[in-house]
Amino acid sequence: MSKFWSPFVKDLVPYVPGEQPKLAKLVKLNTNENPYGPSPKAIAAMQAELGDSLRLYPDPNGERLKQAVADYYGVQTSQVFVGNGSDEVLAHAFHGLFQHGKPLLFPDVTYSFYPVYCGLYGIDYEALPLDEQFQIRAEDYARPNGGIVFPNPNAPTGCLLPLAAIERILQANPDSVVLVDEAYIDFGGETAITLVDRYPNLLVTQTLSKSRSLAGLRVGLAVGHADLIEALERIKNSFNSYPLDRMAIAGAAAAFEDRDYFEQTCRQVIASREAVVAGLQDLGFEVLPSAANFVFARHPGRDAAQLAAALREQGVIVRHFKQARIAQFLRITIGAPEQNQALLDALKGLV
Amino acid sequence: MSKFWSPFVKDLVPYVPGEQPKLAKLVKLNTNENPYGPSPKAIAAMQAELGDSLRLYPDPNGERLKQAVADYYGVQTSQVFVGNGSDEVLAHAFHGLFQHGKPLLFPDVTYSFYPVYCGLYGIDYEALPLDEQFQIRAEDYARPNGGIVFPNPNAPTGCLLPLAAIERILQANPDSVVLVDEAYIDFGGETAITLVDRYPNLLVTQTLSKSRSLAGLRVGLAVGHADLIEALERIKNSFNSYPLDRMAIAGAAAAFEDRDYFEQTCRQVIASREAVVAGLQDLGFEVLPSAANFVFARHPGRDAAQLAAALREQGVIVRHFKQARIAQFLRITIGAPEQNQALLDALKGLV
Repeated sequence: MSKFWSPFVKDLVPYVPGEQPKLAKLVKLNTNENPYGPSPKAIAAMQAELGDSLRLYPDPNGERLKQAVADYYGVQTSQVFVGNGSDEVLAHAFHGLFQHGKPLLFPDVTYSFYPVYCGLYGIDYEALPLDEQFQIRAEDYARPNGGIVFPNPNAPTGCLLPLAAIERILQANPDSVVLVDEAYIDFGGETAITLVDRYPNLLVTQTLSKSRSLAGLRVGLAVGHADLIEALERIKNSFNSYPLDRMAIAGAAAAFEDRDYFEQTCRQVIASREAVVAGLQDLGFEVLPSAANFVFARHPGRDAAQLAAALREQGVIVRHFKQARIAQFLRITIGAPEQNQALLDALKGLV
Repeated sequence: MSKFWSPFVKDLVPYVPGEQPKLAKLVKLNTNENPYGPSPKAIAAMQAELGDSLRLYPDPNGERLKQAVADYYGVQTSQVFVGNGSDEVLAHAFHGLFQHGKPLLFPDVTYSFYPVYCGLYGIDYEALPLDEQFQIRAEDYARPNGGIVFPNPNAPTGCLLPLAAIERILQANPDSVVLVDEAYIDFGGETAITLVDRYPNLLVTQTLSKSRSLAGLRVGLAVGHADLIEALERIKNSFNSYPLDRMAIAGAAAAFEDRDYFEQTCRQVIASREAVVAGLQDLGFEVLPSAANFVFARHPGRDAAQLAAALREQGVIVRHFKQARIAQFLRITIGAPEQNQALLDALKGLV
């Protein structure tokens, strides 16, 4: 603690991202990256930006990307916000839409950045327990609140909440923003963006880091009623006029435009997931139903932290969380087929 | 105003960046970009990142860039912070270092984003008038405050404050952070980074958008005591784990490593500035002494807003600010020699 710090800084408990190992040889199944590279059209679009034009500022509004997203989802560009990764988009949403003096609601097992944002912006929250099967109970989200946020599918469980349940939450909370964080929606869920024209209290965020294979480029977005988007724009324009660089705008727009590549790689990841689930079950793991590009699994006879450490010794990294309720689970990213096989082979000697 | 907005959002007055025109033919002298492209080594470094590895998250700490900056300035990496443009770095500094219940001090004529950050984070401020020659008076900055910030050279005046005056401000304020925003320092000033080991209350920010020709890549940095850097890291890690994408880390690091190209292009800009100053003076303009890659000039016989509009009709864009004290000035970016000549030629017909 330094006397120079703003007082809240000393109590900040930052988010801890998954390890980005420097060793290239590892089988890296710990941060839910896509095993397939970005769309060749995204690479080509970035290639076209790579040159002297980088001396010029980017379009502060990222219109090219907003248009690509609007075209993809059939919405207006005034309903689209873009930012430097969905983490930045989420941060602005917490800042601009959740400071209402009442607690924000989110699940007890969820993306661990949510309580961090609450610390950053002084927002109270209540973490509502998932049920025994690690599912969100829509009926729990009818109590007084200053906003609601959850990932769908949830992280790190991978479990999907049907759109009908999301609608019940939206209808029970006409005076609160309900933020549905769809980082993993393209691997088996149905986007709530189809609901934004009917629910002015719905904000949906997505990322290009998972299904669009651009984690290294840092692009995220939000879709919702233009009034909600305006709050995000005001914050963005009071924070950083140009959050997306020229390469990011070009690459992300092209990735959204290349629907074929996107659909094909998603299908491959989904097929691999089903194979990994079967392989884990053969080894005695219990695997939660996943609609994401990862699975959340526990073994009745093996301690998860020890398993994660043993896997790492064999060059396979998965993610383990210490939080009590999920301390016996491993979160395993779906990799390329040979990576998934390496994981299953390594586990075979451990369980 | 929407009922969903956090209350402070309705009073936010966002920063307005300079126009990014879609027409390529314009002589664009309005946003202080560098007329020369990025270092070829920066382009090559980005080229090496452009491929399948973009599916992977970047290094959350941007160590490669921190090391390049630390090497360049002879400091430790623990004294270096990197972010998505110096605007993001400044925002985190306002948030993490200036919330102390006393007003922040900055000049009345300065970077117009400072009062915007104050609105975003609920910070009171006092704008202290520049003197009659539009210079910062160091002795004014000895009153009670929660922090001090100014650009050096100042924007949009271009005027430089000598390091000795900065030291007087630092010495008069041992309990406040003094943030020196060196966006333009490489065009004629001496960096205050040489003082960070002696003043734990000094934070220096810089950008790669000007002297390093990478406005389109969005990279900024701060150098200061490790305690100040830790506050920024805590905020950053509570906001966005990966603010810099893979292209930005690689390109920015290579730009810092290519000292020859940097020094050569800065020399060319400085030489062009001296020619532009002489040309403007020949046309009857009063030009403030500039240590930046722009000049701030007024004509005794012509209204500045009308001049800016007339220049635009001839395809030359410069920046005009409506703020009363500087409403008769134009801020003119130093371009390539042929752009500067186009500016002077256009003005010749107008004054």
